[in-house]
Amino acid sequence: MDEKIVAKEIWSIKANPSSSEWLEFFSEKVEAQDSKFLRSFLDNNHPADIAEVLEKISTDSAIYVFKLCDSEMQSAVLVEFDEEYQAELISRLRLDEISPIVEKLETDEVTNLISEISKEKAEEILNSIDKEDSSQIRKQLNFREYTAGRLMTTDFASAYETDTVRKAIIKLRRVAKETEDIYLLYVTDEQNHLKGYVKLKDLFLAPLNSKIGRLVKEEAFHIHYDTDQEEVAKTFRKYDLVSCAVVDDLDRIIGRITVDDILDIVQEEASEDILRLGGVSEEERLNTSIWDSLRRRLTWLVINLGTGVLAASVVSYFESTIQSFVLLATLMPIVAGMGGNAGTQSITVVVRNIATGDLSAANWGSAFRKEGIIGLINGLSIGAITGITVFLYTGKLVLAIVIFLAMLSNLIMAAVVGAFIPLVLRAFGIDPAIASSIFVTTFTDIFGFFCFLGLATLFLGYL
Amino acid sequence: MDEKIVAKEIWSIKANPSSSEWLEFFSEKVEAQDSKFLRSFLDNNHPADIAEVLEKISTDSAIYVFKLCDSEMQSAVLVEFDEEYQAELISRLRLDEISPIVEKLETDEVTNLISEISKEKAEEILNSIDKEDSSQIRKQLNFREYTAGRLMTTDFASAYETDTVRKAIIKLRRVAKETEDIYLLYVTDEQNHLKGYVKLKDLFLAPLNSKIGRLVKEEAFHIHYDTDQEEVAKTFRKYDLVSCAVVDDLDRIIGRITVDDILDIVQEEASEDILRLGGVSEEERLNTSIWDSLRRRLTWLVINLGTGVLAASVVSYFESTIQSFVLLATLMPIVAGMGGNAGTQSITVVVRNIATGDLSAANWGSAFRKEGIIGLINGLSIGAITGITVFLYTGKLVLAIVIFLAMLSNLIMAAVVGAFIPLVLRAFGIDPAIASSIFVTTFTDIFGFFCFLGLATLFLGYL
Repeated sequence: MDEKIVAKEIWSIKANPSSSEWLEFFSEKVEAQDSKFLRSFLDNNHPADIAEVLEKISTDSAIYVFKLCDSEMQSAVLVEFDEEYQAELISRLRLDEISPIVEKLETDEVTNLISEISKEKAEEILNSIDKEDSSQIRKQLNFREYTAGRLMTTDFASAYETDTVRKAIIKLRRVAKETEDIYLLYVTDEQNHLKGYVKLKDLFLAPLNSKIGRLVKEEAFHIHYDTDQEEVAKTFRKYDLVSCAVVDDLDRIIGRITVDDILDIVQEEASEDILRLGGVSEEERLNTSIWDSLRRRLTWLVINLGTGVLAASVVSYFESTIQSFVLLATLMPIVAGMGGNAGTQSITVVVRNIATGDLSAANWGSAFRKEGIIGLINGLSIGAITGITVFLYTGKLVLAIVIFLAMLSNLIMAAVVGAFIPLVLRAFGIDPAIASSIFVTTFTDIFGFFCFLGLATLFLGYL
Repeated sequence: MDEKIVAKEIWSIKANPSSSEWLEFFSEKVEAQDSKFLRSFLDNNHPADIAEVLEKISTDSAIYVFKLCDSEMQSAVLVEFDEEYQAELISRLRLDEISPIVEKLETDEVTNLISEISKEKAEEILNSIDKEDSSQIRKQLNFREYTAGRLMTTDFASAYETDTVRKAIIKLRRVAKETEDIYLLYVTDEQNHLKGYVKLKDLFLAPLNSKIGRLVKEEAFHIHYDTDQEEVAKTFRKYDLVSCAVVDDLDRIIGRITVDDILDIVQEEASEDILRLGGVSEEERLNTSIWDSLRRRLTWLVINLGTGVLAASVVSYFESTIQSFVLLATLMPIVAGMGGNAGTQSITVVVRNIATGDLSAANWGSAFRKEGIIGLINGLSIGAITGITVFLYTGKLVLAIVIFLAMLSNLIMAAVVGAFIPLVLRAFGIDPAIASSIFVTTFTDIFGFFCFLGLATLFLGYL
């Protein structure tokens, strides 16, 4: 065999999903059903990399490769797909292909998967797997979506306060064989009430005969199963947690959440806010179909069109003023637009600080004052620059004063309304990220046009 | 003592920084120098909660409380402050107060702190602490900011492949006493080249006499010290890591990064993108001074004003058209505004997907096509709605056709330009979040005004 070809073959086994050439090369291998190549691809790559490649090739090819894996690998790859893709894949597999995969997943992963697919299919799957597992999953499905109860896994290591270190290690070993990520040993009383935790590293330092209860240094952080996932993420961030116990109403431990899920949540919640602020549905991903993307974006644009018409109707009210002094038509978009820009700045800061938890009832007064002062100074500065420019350009002092006053009022309003609306929306239980910007820009458009054209009408004789 | 007062006292020891009443109550206690209350406050709260309270009261009060802590607690509280506040606090302490705190910090925490304060102060501090520590820190300060080398701590547990499990546990114990978060034991050859890792839980399962090398299941994830922190975060997210080894140019382990730092980075990078997209400096926090906020926001607004004037100059070019048909002045902001909205949607999706790594060279072609199709259909729909509304309202068919065509062109342009500009900026090494929106809205304003007023001028005789 030519040496160059060998080198290419070896190079090509490592996943390289960011190169379109490599993806093409891989797709050819799949079409040729080159099972020797595909097997070494599967053996030599991390499930996360395999999933990334499969998501980027045709679904038929992906399923062909997926079926080459054993069920262990299939479950490892499956959980790396995003949720829509998981559901798609499951819908294309037979029940006897699905059950062994599902049995190898952790409970939170199954719950996640099940909640994405049709009720009938979910019921079929649950009936096909181990009874104990399925009753556990049914229980977990009863928790509200996006809460700690849904995020947790029910596999965790625990021991009683009264156990010796030796006994605790024996208990730990039993769980450790089957559970991937154990960082803490939870300590409970005999009714499973959470009493604290011991770090694994501290178990190595402890004499084998001492009681576990004596190793507990501090209260374990615990989270009630009904806690919202955003709150859960805040707790992890604030206290630098790696794992956190989830408790029931009686403070008994029922599961634990690990930090890898939290990383994903922090990322998702941030994406949600960014997309919502940009007027895009939070569910839109790169692989969302064009029709879904369209439906969501178009809805938002139609709403914007409505508010645009509202603003335009303010302009139409002043048509005769514009007719007699057409320069106003040139200048009015500047006043409205600057209000929109300044308002967006205020919203962005306020919405972000609400999301990170830095803005709360204790300090919204001072945040509000700050935005007000910024609005005032921004208004004076931008108003002055605009006024002077207009004066230099047109030589009309009254027009310069009119645009100065309109800009000043609109920028103050923009800052105050931009800081206020997210808080109001939040008080009504509406995500401030989703609706703030449309309220604020509508407001600054209408108010900007009204101030500028209104003042111009008042002083029309002097323009 | 009255029972009610006792209850209030007990309640009040737990930090409640989200209630302004509680903060007032706490500030009074500080002013009264009620050391009994303050001591039990410090004893009963997590350093993260203590820091949160101190950040919200006056700096003088905060320093008073901070000085009540022993150096252990001081270092635990200090790292919970944000960086600006850390620097402020350090500048208010004497060198003999700082040194014992610094000695209790991990290397990445010191490096962080040192890079925030003045060179002279930093030099003083480094000279005052243990020589071995300070030379380590100086070394770490040579790495580029925002890279793995800066994020890592140099405290980690490792053993040689040839060690027995027993020996490895002895090595582990030595490190475990002084290091908080150990999740993995790194395995190296005798020249410290990284060979893999063993999870702590697996150490409990292994026979004491077996060789550590035999427990290594897979390659350890490792990151070169010069890797950008955004890349590091992506690796953690993709492979669900808790801890990751940092290696030098010769693949020798020199430190490790833990997931708690990554959580903060993911959050910060997201905030950065959100704020930049909103036209606010990424460094603006709630406690940024008004003047700093102003300076940053005003700069952005002035740039926007410039682009606004550019767009207005397009309008002024058509003043005579507007003069003869003033309804155009009412309608033109709608065309420009809708372009801005649609462009913002495209930017948002593209910028976010660049940030999460989902959009790369391999799929930007398809992303681009998708935005184009969305732009076309959005344009047809919004154009049709607007055209029909204008026709019903004014009865002028030609005007309706003009606004339909202008809207269609502007929305297609908005989508294409909105998808294109972030990629171009990125190719030039500019963060797409910071500048995309201003380019796109300027473009849609100018193009929108030009299309609409231009077409109207062409068909003026028929309007």
